[in-house]
Amino acid sequence: MVSPHSSSPAPTPYAQLLSHLGRIHKLETIAQLLGWDEQVNLPKGSADLRAEQHAVLAETIHAAASDPELGALIARLAEGKGAAGDALSAEERLVVREAQRDYERATKLPVAFVRAKAAQSSVGFHAWAKARAEDDFASYAPVLERNLELAREEAAYLGWGGDPCTSASGEGGSRAYDYMIDKHDPGLSAAVIEGLFGELRAGLVPLAREISENDDGRAKAARARLRGFSINAQREFLDEVTRRLGFDYEHGRIDVSLHPFCAGTGADIRMTTRFNEDEPLDSLFSAIHETGHGLYEQGLPLAHHATALGKAAGMGVHESQSRLWENQVGRSRAFWAFFEPRFREKFSGPLRGVSSEELYLAVNAVEPTLIRVDADEVTYNLHIILRFEIERQLFSGALKVGDLPEAWAALSRELLGLEPKNDREGVLQDVHWSDGAFGYFPSYCLGNMIAAQLWEAVRAEEPEIEADFAHGDFGRLLAWLRKNVHAAGKRHDALDLTQRVTGKPLSPAPLLRYLRERYLPLYS
Amino acid sequence: MVSPHSSSPAPTPYAQLLSHLGRIHKLETIAQLLGWDEQVNLPKGSADLRAEQHAVLAETIHAAASDPELGALIARLAEGKGAAGDALSAEERLVVREAQRDYERATKLPVAFVRAKAAQSSVGFHAWAKARAEDDFASYAPVLERNLELAREEAAYLGWGGDPCTSASGEGGSRAYDYMIDKHDPGLSAAVIEGLFGELRAGLVPLAREISENDDGRAKAARARLRGFSINAQREFLDEVTRRLGFDYEHGRIDVSLHPFCAGTGADIRMTTRFNEDEPLDSLFSAIHETGHGLYEQGLPLAHHATALGKAAGMGVHESQSRLWENQVGRSRAFWAFFEPRFREKFSGPLRGVSSEELYLAVNAVEPTLIRVDADEVTYNLHIILRFEIERQLFSGALKVGDLPEAWAALSRELLGLEPKNDREGVLQDVHWSDGAFGYFPSYCLGNMIAAQLWEAVRAEEPEIEADFAHGDFGRLLAWLRKNVHAAGKRHDALDLTQRVTGKPLSPAPLLRYLRERYLPLYS
Repeated sequence: MVSPHSSSPAPTPYAQLLSHLGRIHKLETIAQLLGWDEQVNLPKGSADLRAEQHAVLAETIHAAASDPELGALIARLAEGKGAAGDALSAEERLVVREAQRDYERATKLPVAFVRAKAAQSSVGFHAWAKARAEDDFASYAPVLERNLELAREEAAYLGWGGDPCTSASGEGGSRAYDYMIDKHDPGLSAAVIEGLFGELRAGLVPLAREISENDDGRAKAARARLRGFSINAQREFLDEVTRRLGFDYEHGRIDVSLHPFCAGTGADIRMTTRFNEDEPLDSLFSAIHETGHGLYEQGLPLAHHATALGKAAGMGVHESQSRLWENQVGRSRAFWAFFEPRFREKFSGPLRGVSSEELYLAVNAVEPTLIRVDADEVTYNLHIILRFEIERQLFSGALKVGDLPEAWAALSRELLGLEPKNDREGVLQDVHWSDGAFGYFPSYCLGNMIAAQLWEAVRAEEPEIEADFAHGDFGRLLAWLRKNVHAAGKRHDALDLTQRVTGKPLSPAPLLRYLRERYLPLYS
Repeated sequence: MVSPHSSSPAPTPYAQLLSHLGRIHKLETIAQLLGWDEQVNLPKGSADLRAEQHAVLAETIHAAASDPELGALIARLAEGKGAAGDALSAEERLVVREAQRDYERATKLPVAFVRAKAAQSSVGFHAWAKARAEDDFASYAPVLERNLELAREEAAYLGWGGDPCTSASGEGGSRAYDYMIDKHDPGLSAAVIEGLFGELRAGLVPLAREISENDDGRAKAARARLRGFSINAQREFLDEVTRRLGFDYEHGRIDVSLHPFCAGTGADIRMTTRFNEDEPLDSLFSAIHETGHGLYEQGLPLAHHATALGKAAGMGVHESQSRLWENQVGRSRAFWAFFEPRFREKFSGPLRGVSSEELYLAVNAVEPTLIRVDADEVTYNLHIILRFEIERQLFSGALKVGDLPEAWAALSRELLGLEPKNDREGVLQDVHWSDGAFGYFPSYCLGNMIAAQLWEAVRAEEPEIEADFAHGDFGRLLAWLRKNVHAAGKRHDALDLTQRVTGKPLSPAPLLRYLRERYLPLYS
């Protein structure tokens, strides 16, 4: 007969906490896999089943994350004492604090609210898609109103606001927007971002204008010449590039999806890209971008994936990793010094007659556009500043939903020097708000700032780093990021981390210096 | 604020049961997807994470399947009454009865037993792999002893035996073996199978001998000539074949794995095959086999996937579907009359100089081998009869584990006319017993019998069916199977279903007639 294991001492409350968090984490990795599979593999007709699978798993995760037993453990550990009354270590206290934050998010929202939000998310997506297709902002406006209302309610439930029933105007809105920002980037607030973006805008608008005025069209022409790149050869090239950058294919893979993304946690990172014979740089840079995300995930300490010690610091830091590899590394002369001969070997046909300088210009083509997702790395930030400005005003009540199209057009003129002909080129272009994802856009630009500041720091510490790139060696950069950024997990928020690693507060100055250094020589 | 939905009447107990079963079903489809992904996509280094994901999901499913609330609902509904005291319909009673069976499996096994079995499964696999690599049966014997003991305990917990502590000998063993058989094929027993296999053996051994004696080596030679078939072209051909057979790629896909299989439930069927340039028939027939499984799954009523009304009748019936498409259809002259020109178009190079008759012989090559997985469709059944005979004797106590190698060799001589040179070619060749999967092998042969009997019935009812094949039309066969087999779900067990659909009790006679009809003209 089965004999029970020999008795062992009862686990400590902290060990019990880890066990709860471990279960939640594993369920979350399964949800990630379902999401990845949905984008990569799911047969067309199986979407309903997948939705049901997502729902049942989400319920299971929610039940685990709001388990009263977990709450009791956290409450006990939050006093800072372990099993025998011994003090918890600083790391343990961090784990408990973050577990508490997650537990509150899981428990403070009433079930009816969560259901209403989920239902609205589906309604919102379809309303947005229809409004965009028909260029009909008026039909979408009520969805935005409702999503703003839900965002304020959510903030209020979590202690970031007054009565969730208050109207759209007044200070409550600002607190709610701070909540939305903090949700994506812990520690940040609208006031901090306003300061950073204001300074960035002051430097970036004239820089973009200078580039635009000096643009002789060569970069665009060079880019247009890159046609007919075999998908198989693109795949091989991309495999070599991502391997050399350090992506560990023993613990991850890359596949194809409509929109590139990176999913998974730690031991199994699934990235995607997309291929187009006439847009070889799009698939390559999408893959490098996702590799940046993947390297970060692979660098988080495996043993701690279930706790704050092994989780990403926030969206801004995550984005800093993807942008640093995509832009500072992937668009550099040193990178292309190494990869250009390989690129030409694979694509000798389509590259015939394209000079090295033309190729480099194609990689670094800058051209203002009305559409964020098509933007280059200079003007991209202006698209984000625009969205931040609008979100801030929506939440403060200074801007009414009905006035959005006009406000968008005015800001577009001011920042990009372009005016949308219709709302599809303006306020209807992004999906984010249809799902209530406010406070999400700023992370993209914060990521660019952090990337540039890290880049300045690593170049100062490791002056040979770009010489390494020219030899196809990216190990020194990766090791530096592993040590300074990845290994820290969630120990420090974006502001703290930047200060600690670079010795200076987060600032847009390094991004502006980097952009000037890279682009002015090409556009002058 | 969120307003609650308008009040609706409380769900009936039967509706509550469906809700429980729906949740369990969806979780099970997620587990299927994890398993599929593991074989198809999982990066090498991510196996530990996947094992943890499987474990946490299995725990979640077990908790749902053994939920006392579910047990109380089943107990209430098992009295045959609905909410208002009205009688449940026959279908509802079936759903309740099968739910009860599953609930008992989920609740009657003590947690310590389930853990011990899971641990033993891992130990068993590694012991088997090592023993096979080193041809060392003695090191594996204790694992088999233990697995037999666990099987008897499991049977006893579920009411199929006396004291789970009883020794290996005596009648208890037989009851336990009946349990193992019933687990895979509800309604079947060792006694029934013994009768069927005895009759099959009496006809099959002389048939295999006759084929062997008349073998002039042409089939083997023809098969050996099929070399250098481009993988891409194989993929395209296989796509065309499986589509024409009726596989719905809007609700499924085919990928590559080391061992072909079919996973998923209903709305998302994931099949696999494997490719080898020098074994084009292997990948093709693997794919057709899995398509047979897939068509069955796709034919189960979607609205009832979570209950017995929408689940497969058992392993034997499942295997009948894969074998019917693979053998009766895929190896027929009519099938090749249609597909040979297409096959030649895709593979004109490697097929140069191969006549139609040689190709057909290659498709239907028969040659006794010691290894089950390499066997043709004639001698395959003898491998199963051998394993059944051994399992039966192990469970009755007539055969000791230590005497297995000799018993295997003796049966191999009797049935196949071949004697293993070592245990790797004998008792160590299969993985099944290392995992405690006794009573599983017979399903393969039962599937062949059922397939042949269905085939006889459909040909009698639809005499034009093979003429359809020759025009590439398989719709009439699929419609017949949909109506007679797939739509029934678990309403009838293998014996009942066969009797209902063919009007006769299950018998090996149709299989023997089919094999004689197909193979004697080729080997005479």
